[in-house]
This record gives sequence, C-alpha cells and structure tokens, in this order.
Amino acid sequence: MRVAVLCGGVGAARFLAGLLQVIEPTDVTAIVNTGDDVILHGLHISPDLDTVTYTLAGATDAERGWGLAGETWQAMEGLRRYGGVDWFNLGDRDLATHLYRTHRLSEGAGLAEVTAEIANAWGLGLQVLPVTDDPLRTMVTVVDEGEIGFQEYFVRRQHSVEVTDVRFAGADAARPGPGVLAALSVADVVVIAPSNPLVSIGPILAVPGIRHAVEEARERTVAVSPIVGGAAIKGPADRMLRELGHEASVTGVARLYAPLAATLVIDQVDADQADAVEAIGIRSVVTPTIMSESGVAAALARTVLSEGAR
Amino acid sequence: MRVAVLCGGVGAARFLAGLLQVIEPTDVTAIVNTGDDVILHGLHISPDLDTVTYTLAGATDAERGWGLAGETWQAMEGLRRYGGVDWFNLGDRDLATHLYRTHRLSEGAGLAEVTAEIANAWGLGLQVLPVTDDPLRTMVTVVDEGEIGFQEYFVRRQHSVEVTDVRFAGADAARPGPGVLAALSVADVVVIAPSNPLVSIGPILAVPGIRHAVEEARERTVAVSPIVGGAAIKGPADRMLRELGHEASVTGVARLYAPLAATLVIDQVDADQADAVEAIGIRSVVTPTIMSESGVAAALARTVLSEGAR
Repeated sequence: MRVAVLCGGVGAARFLAGLLQVIEPTDVTAIVNTGDDVILHGLHISPDLDTVTYTLAGATDAERGWGLAGETWQAMEGLRRYGGVDWFNLGDRDLATHLYRTHRLSEGAGLAEVTAEIANAWGLGLQVLPVTDDPLRTMVTVVDEGEIGFQEYFVRRQHSVEVTDVRFAGADAARPGPGVLAALSVADVVVIAPSNPLVSIGPILAVPGIRHAVEEARERTVAVSPIVGGAAIKGPADRMLRELGHEASVTGVARLYAPLAATLVIDQVDADQADAVEAIGIRSVVTPTIMSESGVAAALARTVLSEGAR
Repeated sequence: MRVAVLCGGVGAARFLAGLLQVIEPTDVTAIVNTGDDVILHGLHISPDLDTVTYTLAGATDAERGWGLAGETWQAMEGLRRYGGVDWFNLGDRDLATHLYRTHRLSEGAGLAEVTAEIANAWGLGLQVLPVTDDPLRTMVTVVDEGEIGFQEYFVRRQHSVEVTDVRFAGADAARPGPGVLAALSVADVVVIAPSNPLVSIGPILAVPGIRHAVEEARERTVAVSPIVGGAAIKGPADRMLRELGHEASVTGVARLYAPLAATLVIDQVDADQADAVEAIGIRSVVTPTIMSESGVAAALARTVLSEGAR
C-alpha cells in the first residue's frame, strides 16, 4: 500500500513515525511544506524538512522538543557577542545541515535532490520531498508590524501576535517538486497530516497543480485534525484559525478540508462534533490522536490507512 | 606616531601584536589582504581579517596555531556525515564570525563596516581595514589542476603543488576600501608586514591606487622580510617565489620591495646578504625577526618604527 502524506513539521513528523511502524518506508512519500523556509546569515534553512528528517532519524532532543540531541550552541553564543541576529536558534550540529544544503544549492542542485541526500545520510528509507524546488515563502501580516516572514512571526514573535493575513509569496510561479504529483497520483491513501491547515498545509496546496491533484484523490484522502478540543496540540493553529475567520474546532477544520478529503479523523474528545463534521460533507472517524502518548501514532496510522483504503 | 601596516595573516598578526606593545592602538591601521576570502557554504569567509582579529584579541588557539581557543567542531562533523565539502575547517565558534559577516553584507553593509564591528566586539583598539570592499580573489594556477581559488590551493591542496601563475580576479575594478588611502597618506611609517609577498601583499598592491600610494610613501616605508635563511617561517612563500621565477632569499624579497620600501628588515641569519640587499637599492637592517620567541615581536616593531621614522 503506497501512502503520500502532506506534511508540516512536528505533528506530521510524529504521524510519519507512527506510519513507519505500520508499513514499509519505501511505500511512504512525505510531501513537505517549504513555505517556512528562510534564508538567514546566507544559509538556506528548511525547518519543516529538517523536523521531519531529524524526527524520523530518532535524532531529535526529546526534552527540548525541537532540534538535535547532543546539540551545542557555540556559534549562537559567538553571534550574540557580535550583536548579530539571534532570534532563530541554530545549533552547531544543526548548522551542518544548513551549510550542506546551501552549498549544494549554490552548486545548482535542486532542493529535492539535496533533501534526498540529507535523508539518505540519516538512513531514512522513505521519500522526503519538498513540495517545490522553487521559492515559496509564507508571509504573515501581523497587527502591529505589517507583513513579516513566517519565521519572524513564528520564532521571533513567538506567534503571540494577532495575524490579519497570510500569503504565499512565489506560489503562483512555483512548480510541484520532482515526484510530488506522481506520489499523489499513485498513492493508495493520501494523508493530510495533523499540521496547521493555514500555514503548513496551506502553502503545499498553494503550489499550482497540487490542490487539484488532492481533490482528484479525495475519495482516498484522509485528513487528521490538528485541532483537538478546540486547541492546537502545538503552535498557533487555533488562534490563527480564529483570527483569519475560521472556527478553531474540528468542524472548522472540516470546512477547510471537505473539498480535499473524504474522511476527517478527529480525537475522542471531539466525538460530540462527529455529526456536525459529517453534516459538512466529510466522513468523520473518532480515534485517539494525541501522539505524545506511546502507541497512539502507530494506532492512528493504522486507522488512517484502513479508512483511506476502504 | 601613526603607523599603517600592509597585512596578510599569521606573520602580520604577530607583528601587529608586537607593535601594539610599543604604540597606542589608536595610532595603528592594519590594511589587510582580502584576496584569500572565499564564499563557502554560502558564507563569506575572510581568513586574513579573522587571523588578525583573533590574534590581537588573544583568542587564538596557541597549540593548533590557527583558529579560536576553546573551539568545537560539531558543524564539521555533521558536514562529514553528509559527505559535504569539508576541506576548509570551520569551528563552531569561528562560524559565528562568518554568519555575522554574511548577514551584515546581505543587509548591504560594506566589508569595512562589518570588519570594524567585529573588531570592536573583540575589544580591539586599532583600525582593521580590509584592503577593499569590492570582490578580490587570488586565483592560483597549479600544475596539475589548472586555476583554482587561493584557499583550494592553500588548504585543500595544502600548498604542496607547484604553482605556475597567480592572478588577482576583480583587482582591476576594485577600489581601495574606506580609509585605506588616507591611512597610507597620513602614516608616519608604513610597514609591509612579514607576509607572503606574492599572495598576501600582492593582492593589496593590485588594488588600483594602493601600489602608487606606497611608492609615494617609499621613504617612510619599511618592509620586514618573510623569508629567513631562504625559507618561509610559515606557509609556501619560499616555494612559490622560486616557482614564479623569484629568488627565495632576502635579496629576492629586496627586488620585489625595492620600488616600495626604502628599508628592508632582514633576520640575523641573513646578515651576510645585507650588502647584496643594499646593492639592489634598498637599505637593509639586520635584527631578530622570528616572532615565535617572546619579546622579539615588540623589539622588531621598535626597530621598524625607528628605522621608518629616521
């Protein structure tokens, strides 16, 4: 059974980790958001690609919740001595990834090619595909500062400021990355991972051709709600949904995903909204979705596969 | 007494350290070679500027002879995991300098401005000036590979390959950096530090206007021979002089510097060549010049100042 997963960062990475307990990695393609990529200090940084890669490699720092285990911070400390831009933490080990990526891109390699090299170096067996090799930048308009880059919103402002608009710069001219449309087309099940619908899944769908391909695959597409009990497990998805005129609930998610997915997986705590979800025109499946508990990710993956392949 | 020093890397840095024991830092301007700058992994690396800065800050690793004390190598280890370009060692602490420089340049700051910021952050009191803010790249033709960048020759090939040509790409269009010509003009003494005449001092002189300014200052210019007893104290200056048709001796150095400096300081071991040097038309001064021994750098600086200000 071949599976393609539309992915943001942490939530998607955890789902993929569960999925890889259930099926062979060679049957899995992760299609990953690059809208939150940023060029900083001259380096090309791809946070969602790296979160997926590091997580599946078992290399992340469990306690901190992001970045690599055994990380050190000598470069950042030096940068602070200079009064440099230090709001985006770059660990010394993590820097290797950005140095390598930047160098390979400067040699003319595409982001997909470099991403595959990085994934191989970490021994990953699945395909990790950036949604596009072309520039795609999620721009966030915040109430007190105007339009800023996604990482400036997410990291520098710690997503604690009201958002009035989101835009995907470069999307119109971006082409789906090598393998992306093929993966959606051959997948027996397409999964929309429990990531922020607006700024993780949104940029993926904004690349011309991808939304259409997912709509075509609607009957075999299963979305997992990133909203549980009216809140995001992690990050600002709940606030952002409200601020941009959506409902921060599984029914709000259902409205966004109804054209794309035949099935929406919602958590047990939202079981009372199952009927409301179905009324929107998307089948609801109720199951535990909070993947911080052991065994949940694999069970969730099993449910998603069986529901998508009905 | 104001002093301007034309500088390469280690030899110049050691001379400057001695000079700063003798006069006030505010009276010293270091004009530093940027021909061996390199863009690697997207980062702008300025090895000679950093060697001067780190050395004068007392921050270098004495045992290793280059780079910062307390350095770690996590980024390099990561880069090797990826099979990345790893012939140019970048320590984690050192990376901060390149990240900062690259970021500031990307913001539109000039190299002189960024260099001053870095020198200030290390608490240096002298002026450290890149010879130019414009691109200047020393290109070395080696016998088995054709033309390669200076760092590829110096670090990747460990300068163990025959050189058939040296060229300073960008020199024709380069302008002297802010403050450089003024420093040469107001200096009571101009010093050509004991650096490689061909690839450390050469690129400085190749920037239009600078050779002329040094020629104008010839009577107050003192060169210190980097060749002692027919060999370079460090690096490939001796081999390179021979390979490019010069003599690897103080008389060979005298021929190169006679149009630029009224005085050449040579080491005691070369005392027997003092007459031969003077026959070339440059006054010779014999004194200890090997600065690895304590006290020699300051004494050498004192000699240079008194000879230049006669």
